[in-house]
Amino acid sequence: MRVSIINIGDELLIGQVVNTNASWMSQQFVANGMDVAKVYVISDNKKEIKETLELALQLTDAIVVTGGLGPTKDDITKKTLCEFFDSDMVEDQATFEVISSIFKKRGYPMTDTNRQQAFVPRCCTVLLNKRGTAPGMWFERDGKVVVSLPGVPFEMQYLMDEEVIPRMLDYFKVGFIMHKNLLFHGIGESFLSDKIESWELSLPSTIKLAYLPKAGMLRLRLTGRCMDKERLEQDINTSVKGLYALVGEYILGEDAESLAELVALRMKQYAKTLSVVESCSGGAIASTITSMAGASEYFKGGVVAYSNEVKHSMLGVHESTLMQYGAVSEETVKEMVCGIMQKMNTDYAVATTGIAGPGGGTDEKPVGTVWIAVASKNEIHTQKMSFGDDRLRTIERTVNQTFANLLRLMNKELCGK
Amino acid sequence: MRVSIINIGDELLIGQVVNTNASWMSQQFVANGMDVAKVYVISDNKKEIKETLELALQLTDAIVVTGGLGPTKDDITKKTLCEFFDSDMVEDQATFEVISSIFKKRGYPMTDTNRQQAFVPRCCTVLLNKRGTAPGMWFERDGKVVVSLPGVPFEMQYLMDEEVIPRMLDYFKVGFIMHKNLLFHGIGESFLSDKIESWELSLPSTIKLAYLPKAGMLRLRLTGRCMDKERLEQDINTSVKGLYALVGEYILGEDAESLAELVALRMKQYAKTLSVVESCSGGAIASTITSMAGASEYFKGGVVAYSNEVKHSMLGVHESTLMQYGAVSEETVKEMVCGIMQKMNTDYAVATTGIAGPGGGTDEKPVGTVWIAVASKNEIHTQKMSFGDDRLRTIERTVNQTFANLLRLMNKELCGK
Repeated sequence: MRVSIINIGDELLIGQVVNTNASWMSQQFVANGMDVAKVYVISDNKKEIKETLELALQLTDAIVVTGGLGPTKDDITKKTLCEFFDSDMVEDQATFEVISSIFKKRGYPMTDTNRQQAFVPRCCTVLLNKRGTAPGMWFERDGKVVVSLPGVPFEMQYLMDEEVIPRMLDYFKVGFIMHKNLLFHGIGESFLSDKIESWELSLPSTIKLAYLPKAGMLRLRLTGRCMDKERLEQDINTSVKGLYALVGEYILGEDAESLAELVALRMKQYAKTLSVVESCSGGAIASTITSMAGASEYFKGGVVAYSNEVKHSMLGVHESTLMQYGAVSEETVKEMVCGIMQKMNTDYAVATTGIAGPGGGTDEKPVGTVWIAVASKNEIHTQKMSFGDDRLRTIERTVNQTFANLLRLMNKELCGK
Repeated sequence: MRVSIINIGDELLIGQVVNTNASWMSQQFVANGMDVAKVYVISDNKKEIKETLELALQLTDAIVVTGGLGPTKDDITKKTLCEFFDSDMVEDQATFEVISSIFKKRGYPMTDTNRQQAFVPRCCTVLLNKRGTAPGMWFERDGKVVVSLPGVPFEMQYLMDEEVIPRMLDYFKVGFIMHKNLLFHGIGESFLSDKIESWELSLPSTIKLAYLPKAGMLRLRLTGRCMDKERLEQDINTSVKGLYALVGEYILGEDAESLAELVALRMKQYAKTLSVVESCSGGAIASTITSMAGASEYFKGGVVAYSNEVKHSMLGVHESTLMQYGAVSEETVKEMVCGIMQKMNTDYAVATTGIAGPGGGTDEKPVGTVWIAVASKNEIHTQKMSFGDDRLRTIERTVNQTFANLLRLMNKELCGK
């Protein structure tokens, strides 16, 4: 079953906004056994929208459109869809109530323009948007489906999860889907694919494999698709066993999509606590941890020790250490991790210090040099990395490397691996 | 002059890779006065590529294709273009030399497959790729242009800057372009559009307006295009003046794309320092600040005070305050902001404490309740917000609201606004 995505919005065409909606949606469709055939990015233009809809309807079974549902003049998707399906506008009561409640909460007065958002083409099924003022819309024609969603990612994502995916699975009879995620670290994509080539070739026809590398971390996803649920589970389990036999030492864990999720699972599972101190990662580790619900169960807190002054005053890193070895050194990162662990009294702690760049590099310590420490009550593990000269990439890789090192320490101490 | 972008690659259609190439390229075209009419993302499929080329050639003056130029079998863009332009393959000497030098450097033997990369359609102009083994290609037909570039961002960006943009500016006569960004806060998109409707309708024909809302923040972008540079600048300035007259009190600043950027500008401009303490935002404020180069000029650091224990031990929040008023209270957020400001000795400080959810809410303090404090040496400003029940949304809105309140305080104290 093939899907087209149409993202509408001039902000995409001028590059002001990166089209993360398309990749997020594609992931969801693929994860649910649907193929994304094409992505179109077009402007808020009636003619363009109609032509692209016609074209996509010829090529694919379902079309999901995002954007152009705002209250302002340049948002014309809804009117265009109404014309495209030869329908007329009617007010949707449920949507009207959501809109009024949102404006009550935010304390803004509700204008006629806002009220217009409650109107939808008569021929569509409304997908109630509980996160915003623009409703989703589901249209059917000749066994094909056209869905319109707001472009705001958190509204679009809510409607995809709650309405679009379930309805499409039902409408297009996609069958059972099962996923198994395995998180690898310390092995490159091409090396892994060489090592498991024979295993991959012998996978049952029900199972598809995806390599999902990201910032130094590699996720392998097995997606099983079959009408027979039991057989599906069997196939997945057998395949996973085979994989452990071949490359088990690189597998940090299962059933999580990121190393951060895996850290959270382990921490809760073994009732351990964590604190962090960050220099070059600047809060990205803490922020990644606290973005996940339930973080307060194991995460006590952290310090963003950006200046040397703070490394000394808040964590007790010795001025002599900073003077003699510098802020980016094994000695400093050790004192940082010990300092935070003691101050916050946790079972585990991590520390990062490095040169994210673009400035601050030297011949001896070029931009991208990062020291990482992970510690338990029993041991401290330190590592020096060179992540190159891209600031955001260095931060992202520092976060993943830190989580990976923490997981190896926890696996050793807690799971005896 | 209108451009189409065609990004080829299955990794894009399964959502494994976010299509940052499209947004980066669009930015360059728009900044150089060209309109990006459409972006197509398609798979490595000969038929798809030819059909999309045909379609895009009908609609636009130039097409830039990325991807599918690797040495492997599934990369078929070059062969397809050769057929599309009824040409045959010839070896390009300059490209061959680049390739051999690259292999010499890496110390790998050069295979026939690698050598194939030096072959290009006879009818194209080669855009020499000094950063990789796949050459760029420039085709012309009936006054229109088709360009093929490698999908590797580092290589694509080099060829765009060095070859594609200069050649297109020369080939198509393009006018001047100017952008003006204005950051609004405290006013909704639709409410603003009502207030400035007459102004919007009376905008000169040279100027286009875009509303770019994001997590409680609203950016208004004026884009001007004209052959006469002076008139363009005049039109922009007059329009901006008019906007200040109408809704100046909601404008926090100009020439930045986010509130965080604006904070960074102000801090550097007035040589002030900043520290942060975060509970519910969990490091997101620090991480947003430190993701921008040059943060160390003004950002000393922060504390992620997730547990009450840490609020007390690291910041000196009184246990009695936590007991009597709770962690999510005006009294606590005040003590937090004072604590961090004193510990880190900065000119400005911000603090957040709230219930991000999904757990932890009460009738009195439901999920989404957040207290925000911003402080200078002279005053403390506190505010209570209700951001609803989505965790990530609450964190994002807390970050933007905190930056907005900090900017209002700085504008008042430093710019006399």
